[in-house]
Amino acid sequence: MRITPDKARALLHAHDHGILSTVHVERGVDAVPVVYAVSDDLVGIPVDQVKPKASTVLQRERNLRADPRATLLIEHWDPADWSRLWWVRATLRWQAEGSDEEYRALGNLLEGKYEQYRDQPFARVLALRITGLTGWSGDSG
Amino acid sequence: MRITPDKARALLHAHDHGILSTVHVERGVDAVPVVYAVSDDLVGIPVDQVKPKASTVLQRERNLRADPRATLLIEHWDPADWSRLWWVRATLRWQAEGSDEEYRALGNLLEGKYEQYRDQPFARVLALRITGLTGWSGDSG
Repeated sequence: MRITPDKARALLHAHDHGILSTVHVERGVDAVPVVYAVSDDLVGIPVDQVKPKASTVLQRERNLRADPRATLLIEHWDPADWSRLWWVRATLRWQAEGSDEEYRALGNLLEGKYEQYRDQPFARVLALRITGLTGWSGDSG
Repeated sequence: MRITPDKARALLHAHDHGILSTVHVERGVDAVPVVYAVSDDLVGIPVDQVKPKASTVLQRERNLRADPRATLLIEHWDPADWSRLWWVRATLRWQAEGSDEEYRALGNLLEGKYEQYRDQPFARVLALRITGLTGWSGDSG
């Protein structure tokens, strides 16, 4: 059953992590788990040093510079009861140049949402504009 | 920390669901949660009637017919302890025409792995060949 846009937005605000998919020139698509925060129609995704990375310039950023289109998928999984499954997918467009105010708002939300960033701040925030929102639920509730 | 190919393959075999990302002409990328089974270098993804869908011809199939490249991401999430996070990403190529034997093997694996299909069989199986495997773990173990 399709989820209403209001319900999809509420789930996107409340959920704690998702899968960011971006366009990769050779592989077609890339996908990676991310944490995020939502402010109005912007999704903020931190580039951090908490989860160790091989490089500070991430493949997801190279992908977005080449093609700004992306999706963020959030989901609920239940191995025993598939009627309880749901997912929400936000269609996104990376903002190469956001305003200082936008980055500050997203950064504050991320620090409030994830205690891990209180001890070890992220390096910067990727800002992506929500251009579409859809979702599916296994039941009609 | 990068996960070894052997470890990535073991996690892919053992895990119970993932996110399939495909190329979408307009959106750039699509992503949807899926269940799956692995047989040698093939991933089988059922098209089922258990989880209600709006249509029996799925967007993911239309995407794969237009561009056979895809990825399957599996992940472990732990909100409290990010050192326990891991993910594995299989780079895939959809097989338009697999052998009957391949489809049968994947179908049998799916029925063994998910009891939901014992009462309500899936309609068919999408077969995708693994062309790459990479992964990341928050700790060095």
